[in-house]
Amino acid sequence: MSTSAGINDIEEGLVFQPKFDASGLVTCVATDAGTGEVLMVAHMNDEALRKTIASGEAWYFSRSRNALWRKGESSGNVQRVVEMRMDCDQDAIWIRVEQTGAACHTGRRSCFYRAVTAGECGAQLSFVDADRLFDPKTVYRK
Amino acid sequence: MSTSAGINDIEEGLVFQPKFDASGLVTCVATDAGTGEVLMVAHMNDEALRKTIASGEAWYFSRSRNALWRKGESSGNVQRVVEMRMDCDQDAIWIRVEQTGAACHTGRRSCFYRAVTAGECGAQLSFVDADRLFDPKTVYRK
Repeated sequence: MSTSAGINDIEEGLVFQPKFDASGLVTCVATDAGTGEVLMVAHMNDEALRKTIASGEAWYFSRSRNALWRKGESSGNVQRVVEMRMDCDQDAIWIRVEQTGAACHTGRRSCFYRAVTAGECGAQLSFVDADRLFDPKTVYRK
Repeated sequence: MSTSAGINDIEEGLVFQPKFDASGLVTCVATDAGTGEVLMVAHMNDEALRKTIASGEAWYFSRSRNALWRKGESSGNVQRVVEMRMDCDQDAIWIRVEQTGAACHTGRRSCFYRAVTAGECGAQLSFVDADRLFDPKTVYRK
């Protein structure tokens, strides 16, 4: 009974109770508020989530750098949050953002600049919308 | 040198080499090919990914059920894949789909049927686009 009630509360309730994974993270999808394009998939810990909600700008937690990270703090390519949504089981966040410049550290507007298609020898990638808006060598050089 | 070459290969190459996590999964975001709405965030293991590419319909791996899962196999709410994209570091997939009926097991079109806003006592949820397209009690009853 308690599990059932718990699930109903999480799925149908209006209490914000993000379900962080074993590393303390939820998945976050950022889409372009204008076009609907998926810009990036990243992670937020509790602090990143709170800072994003409070500031209206996207903060993430970098697993590779093990650090809180304000999107655009190095590149200037900030994300202004137009709307934040929570999913049914409260382990994923969707933010619709106004993206300054490019979302991807490689300089592309979106991190998803390659299509996957079935080839004769298995799946293969091809570039789509892969023009760079900036040169990462310049932007991230300190 | 090898790490640098490896990253360049993953980010700039056209070889499909998904980076599965410790559980053998990549994150997959499914959006409505027509509206750009994020329908759901789920996971794919190697087999789900291969079946999705080969069949043109979305397959996932359920962490809670520890099982491969063809989207819509119980509910009939299948996802036809219009386009699949891979992200820069090859650990996330974006599929643009034609969704039959509702994507969410709660009966909503999208799993993201609640908005997150800052309230006086912290973040809170509110229903947005939360009408049910089906009654989960009926659809999932066996």
